[in-house]
This record gives sequence, structure tokens and C-alpha cells, in this order.
Amino acid sequence: MKGSSPATPGGLENFTPKFDAQGLLTAVAVDADSGEVLMTAFMNAEALEATRTSKKATFFSRSRQKLWVKGESSGNFLAVEEILVDCDQDCLVLRVRLPAQGSACHTGERSCFYRRLPMNGPAKLERRLIKA
Amino acid sequence: MKGSSPATPGGLENFTPKFDAQGLLTAVAVDADSGEVLMTAFMNAEALEATRTSKKATFFSRSRQKLWVKGESSGNFLAVEEILVDCDQDCLVLRVRLPAQGSACHTGERSCFYRRLPMNGPAKLERRLIKA
Repeated sequence: MKGSSPATPGGLENFTPKFDAQGLLTAVAVDADSGEVLMTAFMNAEALEATRTSKKATFFSRSRQKLWVKGESSGNFLAVEEILVDCDQDCLVLRVRLPAQGSACHTGERSCFYRRLPMNGPAKLERRLIKA
Repeated sequence: MKGSSPATPGGLENFTPKFDAQGLLTAVAVDADSGEVLMTAFMNAEALEATRTSKKATFFSRSRQKLWVKGESSGNFLAVEEILVDCDQDCLVLRVRLPAQGSACHTGERSCFYRRLPMNGPAKLERRLIKA
């Protein structure tokens, strides 16, 4: 997926997000301090606008087909410090802060990526330690 | 998306990936040292198996509808050190190493996420520095 958006005279590029057929971008939330990947979800245009306005990560739930403020039921809001955009403008990285001792995963783990698939051998998942 | 895979007697869980309607998982490649997100792409079952076997990140190209060994034309292979699996088993994080002075992005940038969308103001992209 080559190509880039037109640059403006000041050297800044326009943000022209490439939503998929369902109107969604992939969003990857990472810990603003450690860089650890916490979770991934999807955003439509409305979720992105709500995130910029509220500074709380807001996604689009594909199963419920509606906006979803992460943490609205658990209290584990993700305070968004920075939004990064990829070359294709179809994926975002959100640099976020969790509450102290908070968890991004519905299982109570800090990160959804709390298991590894070994590179060799049978396809069994192993637990891993996640740096805070 | 609640629920987890059945645990085996030894405490390990089975890997039961939840491929989407197109047979794909989202894969997020991060620098094994810095944790920086380098790129995202998609994997089907074959791409995942090829990645585990070759230890080189191998994706499925949706536009070309075929396997794609990252770096096969540019030389910027991603050597995979670890594969992390999320709670839903529909997303993977690959901890990878780029060649020295290598770039994960087709633009020549180290990471595809070389721009930020400011949290306030007009939707113009700004460049950012990426730690190596």
C-alpha cells in the first residue's frame, strides 16, 4: 500500500484515514511509559473524534455495533497522550496511561498479551510476565 | 469477547486462534529491544506456520491474496524472537529484530508510525522521532 497524503505548504500532511469496508481503523494501545502493547481494538470516525475530544480511548465494538468508552464499566480508562498514524493511514497507535494497578484486559491482566506461543513445538500457550 | 481456551493438565492452554471471516489474525510487530511498534499486518494460518518455521515474519497480503515474507524484496526481514497472543486469540504481537539500520516501513522509515495526529486542533499529521 504505497502512496502518501498530499503535503500542505507548511510541511504537514493532511490526515486522510483509510477506513476499511466496515468503516474501521485498527487501533493498538501501548503503555506510554514502557511501550508495552496493552490491547488492540477498532475505531470508526466517531470513536476517533470522541477519543480526541475526551482524551479517553473510545473504540467501536463490532459485536455490539456501537461506541465503547474503554473502562466505562471497569474504571480502567485509557488516558490517551498521543496518537500515532501509520504510513497507510489505516492503523493507529495510542500511547496511553492506565490507572495505577489498572488492567487493560477484561481478564484482569495488565495487558491482553499475557501469553506467548512458543516458536517451536506444540501450539500450547505459556504465561509471561508483563513489565508495568 | 470473553472466555478462554481449555487448559491442559499441565496448566498450559491450547492455542485456538480466532481467525476472522477472511481467515486472518491481526499481527503487530514490535522492536524486541525498544518495544516500539514497527508495523501491523495480517496473518492467515499458513503465514503463522511459516513464521514459526522460518523465524521470519510472514504475512498474508490482502491486496495480493498471497503470503508475503516481509523483507523478501527489501532485505528488511523481521527476525521473530517471540509471539504473544491476546486474551481473545484474535491478535498477535511479534517481538522482532530488524537488520542494523533497517526499516520496517516501505517509505524507508524505521517504523510505519512515524507521524502523530495532534490531540487538539486541525487534523494535520506531524513527524515524530522514533527511538532505535
